[in-house]
Parts: sequence; structure tokens; C-alpha cells
Amino acid sequence: MDKLKTWIERNLCKLNNVEKMDDPHGFTRLGFTKEEAKSHHQFLAIAKELELKTYRDQAGNHWAVWEVDKDAPTIAMGSHLDTVYNGGGYDGVAGVLCALATIKMLKDKHFQPQKNMAVICFVSEESARFGVSTIGSKAVSGELDFKELIGVTDKNGITVKQAVEDMGVHWEELEQATLPSHELEQFLEVHIEQGDKLQESNAQIGVVTGIARPTRLIVTTHGTSNHTGTTPMHKRNDALVAIAPLISYVQEATLKINQQEDPHLVATVSTVNAKPNAMTSIPGEVQIGIDIRSINDGAKQKLVEKITNYCRQIEEQNSVHVQIQTLVDNKPVKLDQTIHNKLFRASHHLSFKTESMVSGAGHDAMNMATRWPTGLVFIPCRDGISHQPQEYTEVQNMVNATMVLSEYLQSEALHYSNSNLNREE
Amino acid sequence: MDKLKTWIERNLCKLNNVEKMDDPHGFTRLGFTKEEAKSHHQFLAIAKELELKTYRDQAGNHWAVWEVDKDAPTIAMGSHLDTVYNGGGYDGVAGVLCALATIKMLKDKHFQPQKNMAVICFVSEESARFGVSTIGSKAVSGELDFKELIGVTDKNGITVKQAVEDMGVHWEELEQATLPSHELEQFLEVHIEQGDKLQESNAQIGVVTGIARPTRLIVTTHGTSNHTGTTPMHKRNDALVAIAPLISYVQEATLKINQQEDPHLVATVSTVNAKPNAMTSIPGEVQIGIDIRSINDGAKQKLVEKITNYCRQIEEQNSVHVQIQTLVDNKPVKLDQTIHNKLFRASHHLSFKTESMVSGAGHDAMNMATRWPTGLVFIPCRDGISHQPQEYTEVQNMVNATMVLSEYLQSEALHYSNSNLNREE
Repeated sequence: MDKLKTWIERNLCKLNNVEKMDDPHGFTRLGFTKEEAKSHHQFLAIAKELELKTYRDQAGNHWAVWEVDKDAPTIAMGSHLDTVYNGGGYDGVAGVLCALATIKMLKDKHFQPQKNMAVICFVSEESARFGVSTIGSKAVSGELDFKELIGVTDKNGITVKQAVEDMGVHWEELEQATLPSHELEQFLEVHIEQGDKLQESNAQIGVVTGIARPTRLIVTTHGTSNHTGTTPMHKRNDALVAIAPLISYVQEATLKINQQEDPHLVATVSTVNAKPNAMTSIPGEVQIGIDIRSINDGAKQKLVEKITNYCRQIEEQNSVHVQIQTLVDNKPVKLDQTIHNKLFRASHHLSFKTESMVSGAGHDAMNMATRWPTGLVFIPCRDGISHQPQEYTEVQNMVNATMVLSEYLQSEALHYSNSNLNREE
Repeated sequence: MDKLKTWIERNLCKLNNVEKMDDPHGFTRLGFTKEEAKSHHQFLAIAKELELKTYRDQAGNHWAVWEVDKDAPTIAMGSHLDTVYNGGGYDGVAGVLCALATIKMLKDKHFQPQKNMAVICFVSEESARFGVSTIGSKAVSGELDFKELIGVTDKNGITVKQAVEDMGVHWEELEQATLPSHELEQFLEVHIEQGDKLQESNAQIGVVTGIARPTRLIVTTHGTSNHTGTTPMHKRNDALVAIAPLISYVQEATLKINQQEDPHLVATVSTVNAKPNAMTSIPGEVQIGIDIRSINDGAKQKLVEKITNYCRQIEEQNSVHVQIQTLVDNKPVKLDQTIHNKLFRASHHLSFKTESMVSGAGHDAMNMATRWPTGLVFIPCRDGISHQPQEYTEVQNMVNATMVLSEYLQSEALHYSNSNLNREE
């Protein structure tokens, strides 16, 4: 196992394009940039070493395939190599690396699969550049909203279309990138947890049951801006004073819903922008952003309803106008229960302390799950920190996840009939 | 009087560098820019028409003097010509114009003053460019904090020193610009009210008793930023949730203090900046700016104490650290009571409905008042709107203020003994 550990250690640096994993500024590899492309290039080099067949699909994702039989089903694994600004070197990378390491392990064991295995390196998973996440996996699973996407720009005004084409991907091809369902049998992803539940319960492996995708609201309050010095208190129409109680309310209402049931509901007033935001001006307009997540869609909708009612109250009690805009309303994604159970058993069989859990963050797996039976494995990350240079997971955790995938695949890829994935009842 | 009205109308456009006062974008003449200098140039042209002696002082303020006797006392009047971004054409301009018009009126009447009269056109009154207000009048009255000023930059990174020198003012001279007290006898300013009290009470003239200068706090709350999706509600250290109740508290505490006494206390949470201010991150740091004004310093200090105690409570009840920084703590300025009474009487004598009032906003007069007996006259402005393109006052209001100054000066400048200003008891 020490050989595998060294292999993972070396290729972790390689995929991150560094000699050592200790840069205090972390990694900045935005989607559809040369930095991301460079890491994809390293991915291809490792795949070549493993004698895998590689190609780029119409969305710019790279594939590495262990093809045993053209007509056999294909089990895909994978994740992404892009990062946020000054992010960590494990979010995404760990998943690509564990997928490659699993194939290496199976080959080293001289395992002879009856199914093909593919590793997918998805492009542009993070929303850091364009505000749109998981572009590569959305394209493959037919989840991309091109009408919405076409107008999107990064902070330098570069459109997503231009960025994509700069990387040699034709927009027209991207629109055709959806993979027919029959081309894959299932999809598996390994990811760092980005939370601290595994660390707290001292577990080595988490197997995910569902992904809590976000509902996002923008609440805009319109009052009247005026001079802070010359406008008496009773003549004000202060948009910030009017909307401020909503911040506490979102917190309280969320706690209350969690008390009644336990839908793992989380809600955050994460952004606040006041206009004119000048020391001598009463705030005339305030915009707050609310991020709401749960694996229970009913709980999310209940909170949205409560927030809406509260905003109507604010309007009645103040001379302000309150607008609520739904920016995003994604339904939670349930992962495949059969795969979950098999992965859990495989992990347990290897004597890992294993937890069944939900994911609060989105991953490529959530798109793949809309089209193919999908499994997601979490490994602990130190103190739950992610999207920061301090993001860290021990190499041993990646070895563990590789062992779980390998254990799972040794039975999963051993036989196939012409039927689909064998379901447990 | 129609001739004076036409003269004011014409020179209002001249000082604003326009043909007509109807630009929907208003005026942008920031301090120490070519735009401001252009209006100063127009000021010099009008002064020349009135046969006044003009010069620039060491701070870059322009002076126009009706000199009757080198050894006689000098009564100064004036205001400024710079504006905020997209401001109005009356804030400042009205004061410079009424001062010039007063001299014209007195000259047309063949009044023979025994004192000299000066009109000062102060530079950079607005804080829009550098965040520092009334630079020109602070320089003259010895109120400029050079140590603080030297590090200040505008939003393009240009230092105030560079901006000043680009306009041909040497920094070393600016440091020497304080005018010896004996050089002036008193100072008078006319300004639009920037509030709607005069309009509401249907008064034509306001005579100001005191200026409520601001105390400004920056309250910074340090919590912990984390992923909105993966951090359970009970494990959060949300800086925004912790500090939000302070916004309502500032409002409530201010209303309460005003109920007990009536110190015309106004307080505003006018700025709010959250970090990282991203949809998927819990706010880790929130900074709010509070602007507090009253002509009663005790009332201001009482509110600051209440806010401080409330912040300590927030710290106790939440796992956050709250820092309070006093950005500005200016004592209210009392204007000269004798001058106030004489101006009030002059206005009343002319049958104007006259109000005695306080100023919630700062003006050049507040600096001049620290060194010379000072009077401030307000004229109504439509709906109290200022610092916006919609800012408006009728030309007749400027005629009225000119008549008041003229009436006042006809007795004030008629005689002089070698003693200082004759005080009423």
C-alpha cells in the first residue's frame, strides 16, 4: 500500500502543477483558462502511463478509458481540476486522482474487468469565474441551459462563449455534448467533504445519500436616500433599517423548521449591498442574497414562503418596497440507493469507520445523477476548511477512498448481463 | 429688483459653466480638478466686472475684495464651487453668488462702506473626492490635520498632495495658509438648507444658530467564514447575523433619546460591507458605518455609549469579536449669537418669514466659526433634495438672501471703531 501512497503523493503534485503542496496562496485555476488546461494535460500524461485511451469530448472534458470490450457497459468515475481563486489543491483533484489510482490498483492486481472503466476530468466545476457551476458535467448530462449561459461574462467582461472557444471548444459542439444514456452504466465520484462531520465522528469514509442543492433569493428593498445630517428621524425611508430584521428572521425561522422535523435545512444571508453606501447618505436601496439548502425540497419551500410573508410584513410596517427574485431553485438530488449500499458495504468490509451522510455542497455527481445511477464518496478534510489555501486532506484518506472504489469495482465489474445495473430490491 | 434677479440668473449659469440649468446628470466638479478650477475662473471674471481686487491664497481659495481702506476691518462672505458626483448647481454656488450679488447691490446703491468686504471662493468643500470635507476653509482657519491628510487618496489612487500640486498649489504653502485672526472681522455664508424645514413652514429665510457636526463610528464584527452548504446552523459564527440587530438598535436608541430631551439627534447606519460577500460563503467579517449628528454633544456621546454597551452584549451572546473605531468625533459648532440676532432682525425687517434653526450638515462656516464670529443664512431648496441633479432653489430665494446680507451690511459696515466687532450684550 506504501507504493500506492507514493504514487498518489507524486501525482497530486503533478495534477496541481507544483513540486510541493505548500503554497500559502493556494491554487488559482479558473474554468476554461490555460491553468486549468495545464492540469488537464497532466491528467492525460498520467493516463498514458496507465495505458488508457484518452480523448476530449465536445464540452472540453477529458476522458481516459480502460477499454476491455467495445460492447460492454462503461462505469465512469471522475471529478474536476479547476479551482476557485486561491483555492485548495484537493477539491476536485482528489476525485480525479482516486479514480486514476483505482484503475492503477486494479491493473496492479491483474484484475480482469468485464466492463469498461472511464475517468472523466470535467471542465469548469467551480462557479468562481462565471457564477455558473459544473459546466462540464452539465453539458454531458444534458443539464446546461444554453439560453441562460450565452449572456454570462466573467469579471473582465469575457463571455463564457469566448472563453470556451479560446480553449478550442466550439460552441455548436458544446450544445451537442449531451451523452446518450446507454453510453454509461453508472457514475462514481470521490470528493473531500468540505465540512467537518467525518472529522468529528472520527470516520474515514462517508457515503452520500443525497445532495442538497441551493435555492437562492435576492431580496431588494427600495426606500429613499437622503442626507444623514438634514433628514429628521421621523421623515426617513431607510431601506437598511427596514430590511435588517429579515437577517435575524432567516436564522430563527431556519432553526425552528429544523426543530420540528430535521431536513438538514441551512439558510444564510450571505451577501448585502447597500446603495449609495456612503457615510453621509441614508441607504436608499439594499439588496441581500439568501442561500437556502436542504435535501428536503419541502423544507426549502416552507422557508421561502415564510421569508416572503415576512417581507410583506416589512412592506406594511415601513414605507419601502420589497422585491423578491428567485435566482436559483434547484431541487435536491437523491443518489442511487443501491450504489450507496454497495459502497457502504465495501467500505465497511475494509474496516473503515463509515458514515452515511448528505452533501451540503454541489458536485459534478449531482448532474450525472439526473441521467445515470450515481454514487458519491466523501473523505475527511481538516477542520472542514475548503476553497482556501489551508484546505488539506491526508494522502492516506485518498488511499482509503481508492481502496473502497477498488473493492466495489471488483464485484461490480466482474460480470455483466445485457440488463442494466443489477438493482437490490 | 428684477435687474438683480436677471444678474443672479445669468451668473448662476456662468459659475456652473452652462447655458441652462437643466442637465439631467447634474454637475460633477470635484475638489482640485480642472472642472472646479474652471468655475473659479468664472468667479474671477464676475469679480472683475464688479471691479474687485482678486487673488489666490496659499490654499488655492480665490478671494475678491472690495477694498476701501487697507487698515479697516474686513468682513468676509463666501462658500464653494465644487460639487459631489452628479450633484446640484446650487449647493455652494448659491453662497458665492449671493456674496457677489450683495456687493453688486451695495455698489449699485452707492453705499460707502467703512470696512472692506471680501468674497471667498473655498476649494474642495465636498468630501466626495477624498473623504475629507472643507479643505479650503479648514486651511484658512487652521483646522487642517496635515498628518491625516497626507496619506489620503481619491478612488484613482491620486494623493491629495498630488491633486493639490496639479492645481498649482504648493504643499508647503498649503501648510502655511492659516490666516491670522486680525485679518478678518467676521464671516458670513449663505447656503441652501439641504433639508425641508423652511419649505414646510413656508419661511423664506433661515438663520442658523449652530452646526451639528458628525461623530462617525466604524463597527467591525469578526466571525468565521465557511461554506453555506456544509456548515450546520449550530456550528456557525456568522458575523452578519450577530451584528444585524445593531441596525435596528441604533434607530430605536436615537428615537428614545429624542423623546426624553430634544437634541435634534440623528443617527444612521449608512454603510455596510460584508466579507467575503459571496453567495456560498457565510459572512466572516462585517463592517458597518454609523453617522451621528446633533447640536448637543452630550446626546451624541450618550448614543455612542449605548452603542458601545450593545456591542459588548452582542459579543457576549455570540462567538464574535466586535471592534468599535471612532472615525470622526467633531464637536458641534455654535455660531455667533450677535450676528445671528442681527441677521434675523434684518430679515424680519425686510418682511421675510424667518426661522431660527440648526444645520444638520457641515459647511465652510463651521471652520471659519472656530476663528471668527460667523453667521450662516439658509434659503429653502425644493423638497430638501441636495447632492442630486434634482437639487433646486428659486432665483428669488437667492435674491432674498442677497437683500438680507445687504440690509445687514448697511449697518454693520457703516462705522468702525478700533475695537473688535461690537457685541450685543
